[in-house]
Amino acid sequence: MADPIRIALAGLGTVGTGVVKMVQTHAQMLTARAGRAIEITAVSARSRSKDRGVDLSGYVWEDDPVALARRDDVDILIEVMGGEDGPAKAAVETALKNGKHVITANKAMLAHHGQALAELAEANGAALRFEAAVAGGIPCVKALTEGLAGNQITRVMGVMNGTCNYILTQMEDTGADYADVLKDAQELGYAEADPAFDVGGIDAAHKLALLSATAFGTRVDFAGVKTEGIDKITLTDIQHAAHMGYAVKLLGVARMNEDGLEQRMQPCLVPHSSPLGQLDGVTNMVVFEGDFVGQCVFSGPGAGEGATASAIMGDVMDIARGLNIPAFGVPATDLEAADLSASGATAAYYLRLTLADRPGTFAEAARILGEHDISIDRMRQYDHAAVEAPVTIVTHAAVPEHLHRALAAIDASEVSLATPVALRIEAL
Amino acid sequence: MADPIRIALAGLGTVGTGVVKMVQTHAQMLTARAGRAIEITAVSARSRSKDRGVDLSGYVWEDDPVALARRDDVDILIEVMGGEDGPAKAAVETALKNGKHVITANKAMLAHHGQALAELAEANGAALRFEAAVAGGIPCVKALTEGLAGNQITRVMGVMNGTCNYILTQMEDTGADYADVLKDAQELGYAEADPAFDVGGIDAAHKLALLSATAFGTRVDFAGVKTEGIDKITLTDIQHAAHMGYAVKLLGVARMNEDGLEQRMQPCLVPHSSPLGQLDGVTNMVVFEGDFVGQCVFSGPGAGEGATASAIMGDVMDIARGLNIPAFGVPATDLEAADLSASGATAAYYLRLTLADRPGTFAEAARILGEHDISIDRMRQYDHAAVEAPVTIVTHAAVPEHLHRALAAIDASEVSLATPVALRIEAL
Repeated sequence: MADPIRIALAGLGTVGTGVVKMVQTHAQMLTARAGRAIEITAVSARSRSKDRGVDLSGYVWEDDPVALARRDDVDILIEVMGGEDGPAKAAVETALKNGKHVITANKAMLAHHGQALAELAEANGAALRFEAAVAGGIPCVKALTEGLAGNQITRVMGVMNGTCNYILTQMEDTGADYADVLKDAQELGYAEADPAFDVGGIDAAHKLALLSATAFGTRVDFAGVKTEGIDKITLTDIQHAAHMGYAVKLLGVARMNEDGLEQRMQPCLVPHSSPLGQLDGVTNMVVFEGDFVGQCVFSGPGAGEGATASAIMGDVMDIARGLNIPAFGVPATDLEAADLSASGATAAYYLRLTLADRPGTFAEAARILGEHDISIDRMRQYDHAAVEAPVTIVTHAAVPEHLHRALAAIDASEVSLATPVALRIEAL
Repeated sequence: MADPIRIALAGLGTVGTGVVKMVQTHAQMLTARAGRAIEITAVSARSRSKDRGVDLSGYVWEDDPVALARRDDVDILIEVMGGEDGPAKAAVETALKNGKHVITANKAMLAHHGQALAELAEANGAALRFEAAVAGGIPCVKALTEGLAGNQITRVMGVMNGTCNYILTQMEDTGADYADVLKDAQELGYAEADPAFDVGGIDAAHKLALLSATAFGTRVDFAGVKTEGIDKITLTDIQHAAHMGYAVKLLGVARMNEDGLEQRMQPCLVPHSSPLGQLDGVTNMVVFEGDFVGQCVFSGPGAGEGATASAIMGDVMDIARGLNIPAFGVPATDLEAADLSASGATAAYYLRLTLADRPGTFAEAARILGEHDISIDRMRQYDHAAVEAPVTIVTHAAVPEHLHRALAAIDASEVSLATPVALRIEAL
């Protein structure tokens, strides 16, 4: 049997503790599957004295994660500290420079520094793996880089933030407002005290940027992801969508078009009867479309101790078994800068306008839409207030740029009392 | 760059042709991803003259697949001829004995000879891979052996025969009888002229036996799969199930219980609102449950040229990248014979009895059920004919053995005019 593979664990929060539990619980099974023992050698975290409910006495303690990453008795650094820069990045860089493999769950770090870190890994013959950074326990990075490696990927879609999906499904199921559901989610521990990172779509956009690079062989380009959060979605929008057979989801879409790479993370309408439309609560779902395979759909737990530890251990097992493929599927130096000029595929849109309640305002809004080549499929006027006439519209397929120009014109006109809301209806 | 990896292709039907198309279409992309060229060297099929719509002129032709498997200029044999014995097995054995890797889509061969072939592969340092044999284009074998390798798997479930799922969903959607839908499916090419292999559950049971061995580290034991087909399912059963919020699916379940391995492929009721219950048409779905990850669900095309070629190419890429893990996740000689004494987990059941239409017959049937510890949750009597009183019953959780004894007793009694139908309600 081969020598044991030796792990250093940087970070002992929920995820790090999960990894310790897995290695301790399944030592024999992991050895049988990997053909060698999986051993934790050393660990590092902020507080040494904190009780984490696991026995750490067999491991060397390092206060400094960079010192941890440099140890001679370590083959793999598992980085689960978090933070896009700072100690996490320093530890990862040190490990890679010393030819040690790195496994990380740190989507923010990779979204910003993925290219540099992948190049550093390859220059030093080390693997850089990040299954746990995207869609929790679902082995979707593996599916993309390995199982579906024979395909040209045509589209990647995903609901990859459990907090947002929980909030949106709760709003629909209970009829509660965004603010109330967010408060509940915070009390249940599904949302952070500062929820901006989740509800603003940033966390999910990090994940999409990683999948997009892997799918299309482009350099990670987080700045190129058009990102909108769910904080402007009202109960009214969700109820109107449901009425028309749609669910509102914070949906990531990446697609290579003729005019470049399109990357979007935004609330969209998807058919209620589709797998994406039926996805409830904190579960994640990722959809890959390939030119030969067609559509494959993967769902599972997007976060949590066990699911994240499972993803990390999948990467450990690969390295233990000798697999070392480039982080994003092809050598980092071959990744091309994405052309981000893509105007985006046409789509039908759901619009909500707040018009002044006097004769001719709808005619004026409709005229502006028509002027910009936006054609109306369905419309509905509802709940007249004293001065406001709210109107919902579903358009025929429209060029996104035309639509945004039309909405800007409506917003600037005197018939509109509030900024129009537009949600893309994603064709599945 | 490493030397090209050289493929011999045994079989040029739909799947083999798909592999040729993929290698020809994506030569450059595959080379970039594998770090070496993927080349087809030689091919073999029954008819050399048949026009398959692809250019085979660059490949050596061998009439004999065994001669193909023996060629010096071949690293991987892809076997897509089919047939559990005969030339397919002979070619695979020859390749493995000569230290060549084998990729096969042949579930029947592996269900019967998987253990011997895995041992032969390992004795010769060759890989034996079969992603295409299970659930078509879904990279589920990879997910199980690699991505989820940190987990003890607790349950495997799958809808893995597109023909059966098409027939069952069509019956529910159109209200047509089994025989009529089967005839349509045959005309559409979804079902074979002799459908026994599909509708009898054999094809799906082959697949389950392979997943089960991989999940639980047991020797492939196809004979140990309790297999029932869908040919006894009536429109009545489907409609009653739908009325109660269930869909009927040909569902495979493998579970390691305290008293041994349970493997079943049988029509079951699953909640209509669950991912399995919503699965329509020829799509496949596989569910893995692991002790750390929880539940992961994978769906995609279960058959067809492109999907199967995609699965095969995933295996090619792994081998080209140097991955060589045992066929079933651990060395074949370490796989344990499964203890098949498992009585099966308890479950609620849907029952349809055909009783004589005279006073006291239902009381007698209920008495027999009670005598065997089967307790009734719901019952319904419907559509009295002159002499028959059909009754449907949903039981509380019952021990499968008790239920089968009770039904045998009812069947043997004079109150029953036809063999009772029992469908398990699988808890998801």
